[in-house]
Amino acid sequence: MGRVYIVGAGATKIGEHWDLSLRELAADASRKAIEDAGISKRDIQAIFVGNMSSGYLQGQEHLGSLIATWLGIPGVAANKIEAACASGGAAVHNAYLAVKSGIYDCVLAVGVEKLTEATTSDVTSALIMAEDQEYVAFAGFSFVALNALVYRAYMRKFGAKQEDIALFAVHDHNYAANNPLAQYPRPVTLDEVLKSPPVADPIRLLESAPLGDGSAALVLCSEEKARRLGKDVLIELAGSGLATDILSLHDRPDLTTLAATVKAKGSAFKQADIEVKDVDVLEVHDAFTVLGVIHLEDLGFARKGEGWRLLKEGQLEKDGDIPTNTMGGLKARGHPVGATGVYQVYDLVVQLRGEAGANQVPDPEVGVAQNVGGVGGTVVVNVVKRVR
Amino acid sequence: MGRVYIVGAGATKIGEHWDLSLRELAADASRKAIEDAGISKRDIQAIFVGNMSSGYLQGQEHLGSLIATWLGIPGVAANKIEAACASGGAAVHNAYLAVKSGIYDCVLAVGVEKLTEATTSDVTSALIMAEDQEYVAFAGFSFVALNALVYRAYMRKFGAKQEDIALFAVHDHNYAANNPLAQYPRPVTLDEVLKSPPVADPIRLLESAPLGDGSAALVLCSEEKARRLGKDVLIELAGSGLATDILSLHDRPDLTTLAATVKAKGSAFKQADIEVKDVDVLEVHDAFTVLGVIHLEDLGFARKGEGWRLLKEGQLEKDGDIPTNTMGGLKARGHPVGATGVYQVYDLVVQLRGEAGANQVPDPEVGVAQNVGGVGGTVVVNVVKRVR
Repeated sequence: MGRVYIVGAGATKIGEHWDLSLRELAADASRKAIEDAGISKRDIQAIFVGNMSSGYLQGQEHLGSLIATWLGIPGVAANKIEAACASGGAAVHNAYLAVKSGIYDCVLAVGVEKLTEATTSDVTSALIMAEDQEYVAFAGFSFVALNALVYRAYMRKFGAKQEDIALFAVHDHNYAANNPLAQYPRPVTLDEVLKSPPVADPIRLLESAPLGDGSAALVLCSEEKARRLGKDVLIELAGSGLATDILSLHDRPDLTTLAATVKAKGSAFKQADIEVKDVDVLEVHDAFTVLGVIHLEDLGFARKGEGWRLLKEGQLEKDGDIPTNTMGGLKARGHPVGATGVYQVYDLVVQLRGEAGANQVPDPEVGVAQNVGGVGGTVVVNVVKRVR
Repeated sequence: MGRVYIVGAGATKIGEHWDLSLRELAADASRKAIEDAGISKRDIQAIFVGNMSSGYLQGQEHLGSLIATWLGIPGVAANKIEAACASGGAAVHNAYLAVKSGIYDCVLAVGVEKLTEATTSDVTSALIMAEDQEYVAFAGFSFVALNALVYRAYMRKFGAKQEDIALFAVHDHNYAANNPLAQYPRPVTLDEVLKSPPVADPIRLLESAPLGDGSAALVLCSEEKARRLGKDVLIELAGSGLATDILSLHDRPDLTTLAATVKAKGSAFKQADIEVKDVDVLEVHDAFTVLGVIHLEDLGFARKGEGWRLLKEGQLEKDGDIPTNTMGGLKARGHPVGATGVYQVYDLVVQLRGEAGANQVPDPEVGVAQNVGGVGGTVVVNVVKRVR
């Protein structure tokens, strides 16, 4: 199969976009990606839309046709891809398959979600649809409550302390401060995090990814098409792994590891022919601080129970061993659910191109993004490589 | 690229399945498809779920992980594909790309929808999400009202009569009578159709596809894998075209043709290297009688404005020029929205295998299924071929 390249990337700022509808956000990011690619929108043959909750929150399905129409390219193939909070990563995965199939040679992966115009109650209802409605949601669990169980289990099992885990939020905010697209571009202190209101004990408000609106888009194309564009730097989407796990926590043998991360990583790393030591910049799906820590372990960057040490030792910094969430992560860049997996790859592209400004990692060549749906019911791992 | 084969097919009866949940329906059809393929469920590497409204109607998203879990194969790649009423066809399309990509060599496409446990009002709200919520649904249009506009425009433009168009319902019911999976396996007369209550004038109740619950599934695999199964008859998924059109009717130049059908057909027929004259059996998306007629024209089986003549002349019968909807079509087999596009291909497989019983078309080799989302905002055309 041919190789797949990311030739264009675009994204909106994440925030409360009360002046922009879902379609406008998606079109904004898409146009930026198309312009960045230096192609005409008429070169796009298919659109893969990552989105979780447009039906429930906006009363709108059929986003493929809607966004193709709004972009002025009705006729192209287009559909929506849903895998809860991993919808964006899954859209990238399906776009990757589409180019690899040889049926399409230039496609758009666009993630979009709009959460801030609904009531908090409606958003809570929308998000728990990532878990099992009949066995878990009906019992009264919210999504944050499930993650709180994971947090407790992790601390109990490994003797880790909340002040060490909560550092993830401080880390993310430090980097978001230099990211013009971040929802919360300002630092927070550990003290502020630990003293913020509890959401579901032990999770504090500032350990939780915020609700936001946003859209990110990537133009993916075949090698032949990419070479014709004559770019100085080419970014290859060198591997894309998608795996599921048992949907509900109560059926899993261990709350402190996500089996889908291990599996998706194995698949993606094999496709890309890389190992853990090759990774120069990393994006993990830290919807809650403790999940960020667990992801570092499941991806192989730390031993089980010791992911928090990387944080404490500064190894996640831009000049550390494994620079992580260098544009602010879910906590501070933001987490517009179905767009997040695309934002993560967007942020890696920014790093690999050397355009990350104050957050620039020194000369990165390989980037990895891990995007999680539910509490690991789905995980997508995408691997990008800089090639000349 | 390698070829793609359908090695297993399964489906539930369509109806009011108040005793089966969404996941149970999907697992039932999936198990039947896996058993039919003669493989182990552990051979499945990825699942593409076609569904439109599980979030709104069941409060359940993340169907990929849910169904993988319920099938006892968590770990596999899985996500949901949504393209309104074309979600099932789109799931088949994405599954086709997945096998063609070489990343997966055995995948499951499963469409599922559950409509009968919601209120009619909720289902009406769910279905209009296929159209533009901000510009059309908010104005009070229901989905059937939009199709009524198309019906009027067609009759006015071409001088066709309702009694000729409504024959499509009579045709479908005649064939459904011999299909054990059909929702309404009994004949109706033209008089009954024309005297049934108006839903949105001129559309009568018996010209409209019913609401139902159901699931259909297909196992798709690579040529190498298919050959190893040692089947007597192999069915190739020889082409799959997906196209969009301007989402809303008010922005289109012509209400009486679906541009997306023409485009998707062109793409699928080219991939499969077939022409109209090669097609032995056809499935069209007759959500309303007039749409069935329009599809015959857009697919190239009749001149514009004359599709209804095929009905009247008996050319859609099993021994006619172009046997169409030979298992009952949307009107009488049923139309569980996100499953319909998969049921259509299932019905073609039944025909190509010579297992259609009283409805058997004589020795068909090439089948075509056309699946529509919204009023043609998306159209998927899948082409199957019998090979030895």
